[in-house]
Amino acid sequence: MDKIQREPIMLDVNHMMSDIIGFQYGIDVSEVMNMMDAAQAAQAAVEKHRGTGWLGWMDLPYNQAAILERIEKVAASVRKEFDAFVVLGIGGSALGPIAVQQALNHQRWNDLPAEKRGGPKLYVEDNIDPERMTSLLDVIDISRTCFNVITKSGATAETMSQYLIISDLLKKTVGEGWQKHIIATTDTAKGNLIQLSLKEGFELFYIPDSVGGRFSELTPVGLLPAAVCGIDIRAMLEGAAAMDARCKSGDVWKNPALLEAVLQYIAMEDRHANVQVIMPYADSLKYMADWFCQLWAESLGKNVTRKGMAVNLGQTPTKALGVTDQHSQLQLYTEGPYDKVITFLKVGAFRDEVTIAHGCEDFKDVAFLGGKTLNQLLDAELHGTEYALYRAGRMSQTITLPQVNAYTIGQLIYFFEMATAYAGELLDIDAFNQPGVEESKIASYAVLGNTSAKYVKKAAEMKGRPNLVKRYML
Amino acid sequence: MDKIQREPIMLDVNHMMSDIIGFQYGIDVSEVMNMMDAAQAAQAAVEKHRGTGWLGWMDLPYNQAAILERIEKVAASVRKEFDAFVVLGIGGSALGPIAVQQALNHQRWNDLPAEKRGGPKLYVEDNIDPERMTSLLDVIDISRTCFNVITKSGATAETMSQYLIISDLLKKTVGEGWQKHIIATTDTAKGNLIQLSLKEGFELFYIPDSVGGRFSELTPVGLLPAAVCGIDIRAMLEGAAAMDARCKSGDVWKNPALLEAVLQYIAMEDRHANVQVIMPYADSLKYMADWFCQLWAESLGKNVTRKGMAVNLGQTPTKALGVTDQHSQLQLYTEGPYDKVITFLKVGAFRDEVTIAHGCEDFKDVAFLGGKTLNQLLDAELHGTEYALYRAGRMSQTITLPQVNAYTIGQLIYFFEMATAYAGELLDIDAFNQPGVEESKIASYAVLGNTSAKYVKKAAEMKGRPNLVKRYML
Repeated sequence: MDKIQREPIMLDVNHMMSDIIGFQYGIDVSEVMNMMDAAQAAQAAVEKHRGTGWLGWMDLPYNQAAILERIEKVAASVRKEFDAFVVLGIGGSALGPIAVQQALNHQRWNDLPAEKRGGPKLYVEDNIDPERMTSLLDVIDISRTCFNVITKSGATAETMSQYLIISDLLKKTVGEGWQKHIIATTDTAKGNLIQLSLKEGFELFYIPDSVGGRFSELTPVGLLPAAVCGIDIRAMLEGAAAMDARCKSGDVWKNPALLEAVLQYIAMEDRHANVQVIMPYADSLKYMADWFCQLWAESLGKNVTRKGMAVNLGQTPTKALGVTDQHSQLQLYTEGPYDKVITFLKVGAFRDEVTIAHGCEDFKDVAFLGGKTLNQLLDAELHGTEYALYRAGRMSQTITLPQVNAYTIGQLIYFFEMATAYAGELLDIDAFNQPGVEESKIASYAVLGNTSAKYVKKAAEMKGRPNLVKRYML
Repeated sequence: MDKIQREPIMLDVNHMMSDIIGFQYGIDVSEVMNMMDAAQAAQAAVEKHRGTGWLGWMDLPYNQAAILERIEKVAASVRKEFDAFVVLGIGGSALGPIAVQQALNHQRWNDLPAEKRGGPKLYVEDNIDPERMTSLLDVIDISRTCFNVITKSGATAETMSQYLIISDLLKKTVGEGWQKHIIATTDTAKGNLIQLSLKEGFELFYIPDSVGGRFSELTPVGLLPAAVCGIDIRAMLEGAAAMDARCKSGDVWKNPALLEAVLQYIAMEDRHANVQVIMPYADSLKYMADWFCQLWAESLGKNVTRKGMAVNLGQTPTKALGVTDQHSQLQLYTEGPYDKVITFLKVGAFRDEVTIAHGCEDFKDVAFLGGKTLNQLLDAELHGTEYALYRAGRMSQTITLPQVNAYTIGQLIYFFEMATAYAGELLDIDAFNQPGVEESKIASYAVLGNTSAKYVKKAAEMKGRPNLVKRYML
């Protein structure tokens, strides 16, 4: 494995500020100053509850020695024994594994010959689309595949359905010893998966009680798939710890996650910036954007009561990819409503360099490209976009990863988690629950004919919906 | 090839309307009535200019007989002679080919054995990330690969850079006859690519003058890659024509694209719904969402002057995937700000059915899943989500494709294109330009040291930017 450089990631918020982009939409430094006390209190509140309640994820960078050893041991055995490793999970059980694999391994991992990978192909199956399930089964050899069933609650309908389908197939295909093809990652006590695992004798990893799904990437949820794909999970945790060390201050000018939370708070509450675009300028980081979108949306999208009034909070995170989406979204970002913050993820040094050959010297428009590198072109386009937004008085910020490696990815994950926790405090909401998804779940179980009382009641209620109007369907 | 069923797609907007979801956020039918004249005028204006100006795409369902024949001939030869087909393009030259391939072919096309595919692997390279380029070159055999270079302007820096890299490699690897590995798709007269193609003798397809990049999927831009992957491109065009026939009426209650445009206009202008979430409940349709996001964002995100005032229009499209993103975004959609419309894409009948095995009968939470199908579970979850949004008084709408096939995808593409054109008319903007991306392009060329006068001038201007404040970087 390459020697991983350990450099800090950097948050540059100049283009959020009024002294740079102008005071019509920029944030004034005095507004940040007005938030200093609230910020300090938010930081103190989060720090005070470290490791308790739903803040168990703050302990993950530390004290996992025994777990790490077991993860690495199991991963080594999976690497030796299987051709494919399939994560069955959804939401927080899938987005992290996908993001970390894309960030840290070859971008066409599954297309590489086995000897170049040195480990199994990775599939993360985070949907129940029947065509997708069939497609997967068309291309894997189930008798050479290990399945990692991940559900915190142990009762996620999608994941448990996948489990039922796969375990049935394994019994039929592999027969005796089929249990060796399944690794379960779940809560220490709650749910069905833990009981099944104990009964069947599955290899078993735990998600601590005090860590919610979307904060679970640094538990075995994320660490096992990463280790199976040869990623240095210890360096990830080291990176997280390094970011944690930068979050010990209550001074916004010294704590990057706190500064981020304060600026987004102001953007949301005082600038009507109800959209945050996260735009990595690197294919390796494109699924980090998805991971962030869950974290930010589920944590902060909340209905609360303030002074007796119902208030609906939250900022819609949406992802774009640089430079690609300059050709699909930038028109909107520069000329559309002043309703968004653009968060760039920038890579200091890519792991490859590709030179653009000469050969268009006769064509004035493109002659200058010959001899440059793709790296230079990409960097220039990021500069250009940032500048165009600046000229249009739009808010943007840039998070720079000096390199993309396990250490910087660990920092980035922990940075966003802390920023989310601080933002929750500033907004005075519970950032760690998701009450708004219950209604949909109950209604769908009712549709499926679950006979428990609450679903039967819901099914009756659903029949009372107004008749749909025919002419509203074309 | 299977017999493709020819059924109409359906737009259901009941959950947009106040008589269903309540009048606090729902749209009142009287509001639609007030728009009847404007809608009729918009429809007439679009129809009047059919085929002219930037409305050349309205002719694409018709009169392409000679082109189709040539596409099919070239595609047949590519299928015979190459192992991989790589699209080099970005924005409108990439999103359509990606979306149609994902919709209509096996979801793990490239992983299938060659004999099951009956054609080459498909790669669409729509970024200039150097790691991505290296990754691609690691897994393809360039001497067995055909490259389709697509740029309408013929001067897109990203695509021309890719062309320079690849043509150089082909010359070195293949030597004589390297030109047979390149197919160009570009403007009939403008730009560098047409000149290069004529000089080198590349196989050449044209994008009509009157068709902009984001409206070009039904030109050779989209049709050639689709045909290479065995897709029935004639059925796609038939579907587009069928939708066109439904767009001949100026009555919103008879023209689905017009109804869609009117409702989104009201949502944007009168309901502060500055976000539209497009949420297919099918993995096959997930990149149709990306294609739509470009169309909607670039076409409607515009800065215009109204009564002497600068106004910034547009709705930020963002994509989600059902059921997956119920576990990452639904919390925000049900409890967050009332600022969005959710557009579901629903599949009537999937091409596969997967039964969930029994085996969890002891567990009350999940026992009811055994014996159901993934299809039923997915459908129930869509119902549940729609119902939860309805209960929360949120606007949603559902576009149903009876099956996902070339005919319904053709309809869907044309539906969104027409809705976009109508919405542009209603907003009184030019939906077919993208002036807002110039600034970024010029600035990036300036950074790269292009010596033409306008770039030199821009470079000087960029130096005048305020000094970045150190403490705004952590």
